[in-house]
Amino acid sequence: MTSAMLSEIREIPAVVAGLLHDGAAETERVAAAVRAAGPRVVVIAARGTSDHAGVYARYLFESHLRLPVVLAASSLTTVYGRSMDWRDSLVVGISQSGEAPDVAAVVSAARRAGALTVAITNEPGSSLAGAAEHTLACRAGVERAVAATKTYVAELAAVAALVAELTRGRPASAGPDDLSRALPAVPDALDAVLGAAEAWIGRADGLVEALAASDRALVVSRGYDYATALEIALKLKETSRIFAEGYSSADLLHGPVALAEPAIPMLVFRPDGPMGAALDGSVERARALGARPWIVGGREVAAMADGVRTVSLPLDVSEPLTPLAFAIPGQLIAESVARRRGMDPDAPAGLTKVTRTL
Amino acid sequence: MTSAMLSEIREIPAVVAGLLHDGAAETERVAAAVRAAGPRVVVIAARGTSDHAGVYARYLFESHLRLPVVLAASSLTTVYGRSMDWRDSLVVGISQSGEAPDVAAVVSAARRAGALTVAITNEPGSSLAGAAEHTLACRAGVERAVAATKTYVAELAAVAALVAELTRGRPASAGPDDLSRALPAVPDALDAVLGAAEAWIGRADGLVEALAASDRALVVSRGYDYATALEIALKLKETSRIFAEGYSSADLLHGPVALAEPAIPMLVFRPDGPMGAALDGSVERARALGARPWIVGGREVAAMADGVRTVSLPLDVSEPLTPLAFAIPGQLIAESVARRRGMDPDAPAGLTKVTRTL
Repeated sequence: MTSAMLSEIREIPAVVAGLLHDGAAETERVAAAVRAAGPRVVVIAARGTSDHAGVYARYLFESHLRLPVVLAASSLTTVYGRSMDWRDSLVVGISQSGEAPDVAAVVSAARRAGALTVAITNEPGSSLAGAAEHTLACRAGVERAVAATKTYVAELAAVAALVAELTRGRPASAGPDDLSRALPAVPDALDAVLGAAEAWIGRADGLVEALAASDRALVVSRGYDYATALEIALKLKETSRIFAEGYSSADLLHGPVALAEPAIPMLVFRPDGPMGAALDGSVERARALGARPWIVGGREVAAMADGVRTVSLPLDVSEPLTPLAFAIPGQLIAESVARRRGMDPDAPAGLTKVTRTL
Repeated sequence: MTSAMLSEIREIPAVVAGLLHDGAAETERVAAAVRAAGPRVVVIAARGTSDHAGVYARYLFESHLRLPVVLAASSLTTVYGRSMDWRDSLVVGISQSGEAPDVAAVVSAARRAGALTVAITNEPGSSLAGAAEHTLACRAGVERAVAATKTYVAELAAVAALVAELTRGRPASAGPDDLSRALPAVPDALDAVLGAAEAWIGRADGLVEALAASDRALVVSRGYDYATALEIALKLKETSRIFAEGYSSADLLHGPVALAEPAIPMLVFRPDGPMGAALDGSVERARALGARPWIVGGREVAAMADGVRTVSLPLDVSEPLTPLAFAIPGQLIAESVARRRGMDPDAPAGLTKVTRTL
């Protein structure tokens, strides 16, 4: 029987297409409000999977809008009761359910203090949406599996669509690629990645077996895909109870590389281009210390030397959009590993769909 | 034979006393420069252990100065070549050796773009110190063990001394406790914590044995001591090759709590006060799912119910300063676990004292 998690992963290309189409007017309205407010700082409040969408948003806002981005420490608001100086801030709360009390508390405090507030959520009737002045709906439909998959990619797409709208038509000299030109092609690209990733997962190449047999794993990437490393590590924890740690390849070398050994699978998400080349050096160092990496990438990994286990996917998106694509093989791996470990990927022990922390 | 790591942990109270005394004039000069610049945003660039000092700095700057704090994504500068808008920013680079090329690159780019730049380093002749306009020296002396101990606490103390100077004499109504009044008593408090922690480590109460027998561990705290959880988890990785993950207690509940089981030690750093009470709820939830926590705390843990394993230390510092104190039992635990696992705490396999990433 197909798990709900697998069904929901398969919906991702259509969910992103729907979001880009049906959410366009909403995105334009929020972008207009951001332009009018002219924030100097962006603050992102989120937990768990949504926090990883926040990590992605952080790189996209900083690189494309040159705005400094703070990942909120909600305890300053909810436990220590500090009032922050939120003037000139854009405060974005991200939560699939919209029922994370600490995220809503930060957004409420920021709104009272004069910040422009935006909720990104799959539930436009939620308390988070009520707390924020504006809402970007994820439009992902009901998600039945406890582990978030399509709603995560929908959050990434909502963030990318907002940044695309804020940089539309900007001269190339003003910064990196125009996301608004790249986004419309993303659903088809995700469809191709989904097909290739499912075909690869179906072949026995050892990765799923190695992960299922281990109680520890390293998941590595960097830059835009630092979010991918964190999120796929969390998926392995949630669905398969594997101690999987997500690292930036640079952070990995500052201590945790001591953990590398052949018995511990190391999963690398490698975009083509300059970041891919930067990742190679760190992966080589980890290999020298005993790590046996699997590298999931695009065209460039197909040309890698023998002896490195690679998965080459049709990654036809520019690097800032690769986190939407890499989520698919990553989630498929977590789903397969859970089943191989005899666990139900839809209902991990001890977890519930909505987590309430303050 | 006493390890260099243990000797260096024992130097911590004297190192902090020396920093507060000998570094006072330097701290005053940097504080004057910060006041004159009037930054709207603080950006912190660091890696590894120093990144955890950055996490501490983040809570202290946000809570005591109400300034938003960005933990820099150095790849935006070093790999993607983005130029950020650094005006009105205070950019702080933290590195024990001062030879982290990515940290120096961020500080250099920020200085060229008009930011006020400060290096916090144990090496005032380092390239990081050269890149920054101002330097706060850690004055910790030579550190021989690869795992940073006294230099980490010295970084925390340098940050606390700067924030104390920036808030000196501020009316109580303007914010939390006056750090400048609390800091002078810290060296004696650290001395008392060191004595109590060494006495406790010497007694066989099972924690060191449990950690040494496990290849996984959870390290949990929150708020100011989120830095403690991250740093002690890293110490266990570096010295003992244990997959120890550091979590905020709130993040723990958003997925990773699925990992909790009796065979995986869970180490909790619990300050007295409101954050301690907030932590208790998360620890209780983890216990219900099978975790067996050890709780390291102050007076309040002594009164906890039977059945919870606690370590009560003479924690005579206000909560914003507890990370300086909790580092001591945390580092002592890592040192003891390494020796019990038959490893050399001073020279972990695969690691070097200076790590260069770009």
